Amino acid sequence: MTTEAAGAGALLAILRDGHARTRTDLGQLTGLARSTVSQRLDSLLEQQWITPAGEAISSGGRPAVAFTFNGAARLVLAADLGATHARIALTDLNAHVLAELSRDIRIDEGPEQVLPWLVEASGTLLAECGRTAAELCGVGIGLPGPVEHSTGRPVNPPIMPGWDGFDVTGWLGSRLGVPVLVDNDVNIMALGEHWAADHEVEHLLFVKVGTGIGCGIVTENRLHRGAQGAAGDIGHIQVAAAADQLCRCGNTGCLEAIAGGAALAARLTAAGENATDGRDVVQLVRAGSPLAVQLVRQAGRDIGEVLASLVNFFNPDTIVVGGDLADVGEHLLAGIRETVYSRSLPLATQHLTMRGRVLGDQAGVIGASVMVIEDVLAPAAVDRSVAAD
Amino acid sequence: MTTEAAGAGALLAILRDGHARTRTDLGQLTGLARSTVSQRLDSLLEQQWITPAGEAISSGGRPAVAFTFNGAARLVLAADLGATHARIALTDLNAHVLAELSRDIRIDEGPEQVLPWLVEASGTLLAECGRTAAELCGVGIGLPGPVEHSTGRPVNPPIMPGWDGFDVTGWLGSRLGVPVLVDNDVNIMALGEHWAADHEVEHLLFVKVGTGIGCGIVTENRLHRGAQGAAGDIGHIQVAAAADQLCRCGNTGCLEAIAGGAALAARLTAAGENATDGRDVVQLVRAGSPLAVQLVRQAGRDIGEVLASLVNFFNPDTIVVGGDLADVGEHLLAGIRETVYSRSLPLATQHLTMRGRVLGDQAGVIGASVMVIEDVLAPAAVDRSVAAD
Repeated sequence: MTTEAAGAGALLAILRDGHARTRTDLGQLTGLARSTVSQRLDSLLEQQWITPAGEAISSGGRPAVAFTFNGAARLVLAADLGATHARIALTDLNAHVLAELSRDIRIDEGPEQVLPWLVEASGTLLAECGRTAAELCGVGIGLPGPVEHSTGRPVNPPIMPGWDGFDVTGWLGSRLGVPVLVDNDVNIMALGEHWAADHEVEHLLFVKVGTGIGCGIVTENRLHRGAQGAAGDIGHIQVAAAADQLCRCGNTGCLEAIAGGAALAARLTAAGENATDGRDVVQLVRAGSPLAVQLVRQAGRDIGEVLASLVNFFNPDTIVVGGDLADVGEHLLAGIRETVYSRSLPLATQHLTMRGRVLGDQAGVIGASVMVIEDVLAPAAVDRSVAAD
Repeated sequence: MTTEAAGAGALLAILRDGHARTRTDLGQLTGLARSTVSQRLDSLLEQQWITPAGEAISSGGRPAVAFTFNGAARLVLAADLGATHARIALTDLNAHVLAELSRDIRIDEGPEQVLPWLVEASGTLLAECGRTAAELCGVGIGLPGPVEHSTGRPVNPPIMPGWDGFDVTGWLGSRLGVPVLVDNDVNIMALGEHWAADHEVEHLLFVKVGTGIGCGIVTENRLHRGAQGAAGDIGHIQVAAAADQLCRCGNTGCLEAIAGGAALAARLTAAGENATDGRDVVQLVRAGSPLAVQLVRQAGRDIGEVLASLVNFFNPDTIVVGGDLADVGEHLLAGIRETVYSRSLPLATQHLTMRGRVLGDQAGVIGASVMVIEDVLAPAAVDRSVAAD
């Protein structure tokens, strides 16, 4: 890394806010000499990371040229693989989706059945946008299980036979020719919702309530993954109401065993309704089943009991609730709010926002794209790309 | 900030690991030209941030001079104010305590009764070490209540009448002539224990079990303070065993209401023993009271119930238990371990260390010193100091 290169990444980081700036602006912001700014901007222009943004108003003499970040400079392939459904998108460097595809999959068929579709879909999406594989700068993937982020390998994923320790990064990287980053689906959804949230949101929890219950933690613009990458596994926190309820994890009393979509569906089935998963529960709520509404509301209270503790401990500014069960409208969220306001400390709840997701089904692919963008546009990475030029 | 200055801070950051390095070493590590490295080292030498460390082995020609970080370059004043006891220390830039004083105080007498002692003690400690106030680069203070770290003002501290909103930073800063940083006592103890822990510890929870119960969170070398600076307030997380127990916070069922030192002392008193706070409980345990041992063990289990949830959520690599009640030896820790291993996910506990504190009563002042050092030696701050020279 050379000094000149280091500065190029730093200049690009400034320009990423979307505002156009002249050489003079950038000199004032960084304290760099005008000649140094020019040299660095030339490197960035050459690699198309920035574009001239027309002429700025000048105080006299020649009009000054302003520059902006060029979000179109590269493409990102982003995929969100669930247990039974997959979505893949091509985005620009602003995480804007340019084209996307989705299909039903069976994640339990193993990586060599599931991943080839991503390679194929990549070609389809590029062709649809009239772009080439050479413009791809990275691939981001979310998987429905624990992933060791540093290696991109799933770790004992419970619903993914054949994936344990599989080298997703290597398999896809060799076929697509670009770096591949992998994380679990809840983490990428948390990144996506954080990206879409107000810029002042610093500490966000994304709670996914689907068949199971998980949480993604974004703090100061970064995912908190914890020591083993296991952070956010709140579905197996014990709650009093679950008492002796046996959970699929082998323990008793887990939140997921009473408030997850599978648990609610089982209770509805036992009561004579027809439900096998969280989506069926949502259908029943929409169809007006009083029992389904009651169960979802109580699930919200039980989830709220866990979140009340986490609000005291972590003091987030925003909690976003997503996952299949979030589609029931306000019932789930009302139960959560009721318990959190009753049980958390006033100092921690006075400015706390608890709300539904805003990105819907796109949270995963947008988050996977953000994960790649933050990696590619990190100042040190830009410096290396400019230096290698 | 100029380019040259930016580099000086970065060079100092490299040298802070205590290893001596030559100009050539630093050139290779940073990619900087030899002349640039020399220029930056000259700035650092001039401000005494570094010192020549004798001659390194050279491959021929003139022996090369190596440089190391000069921890003696500046002094830090660090204070840990508790409800009834205060400690103040003078440290170097490696957070080594050069001299210290302690005394009983009554924090509830208010800032204008308590703070003058810090100014007076500052002079005493400097004189004892034969140093001058001009060598002080900052003051770090821990207070026994919530503090808005950005302004240094206590926020509704429950046991500190007269301190609410008091400008501690301004009051002390104008008298001591250097920047003052303030945080709550549990946070600075967490910083101190993190400083003393193995360098691979990335996610540490410090749990203080005294009259109340609180937690400091250090993740990736930084304190997690949360949105309102309220993070870590685990004493008011609800536990099943506390059920309808009224807590001093006005809520029922709080952990602190059954497992804090005050709660244990009250139960011992009700049983005919003589105890008013956590220290008395420790005395009774040491004196062999079976009831006191049983209560402390059960308090460990109750605290463990809360920590088991936090281990699933946060996935720390280390939990350090401190505070008055930690002095009972293994009884408290055994109860904590028992519950955490029984209730947390195996992936999150397989490499988890749960242990007692190592710094004892010095954790607070060492942490307060670390808080100041990290601020003063941040590369951008060093750059500014060099540029202003």
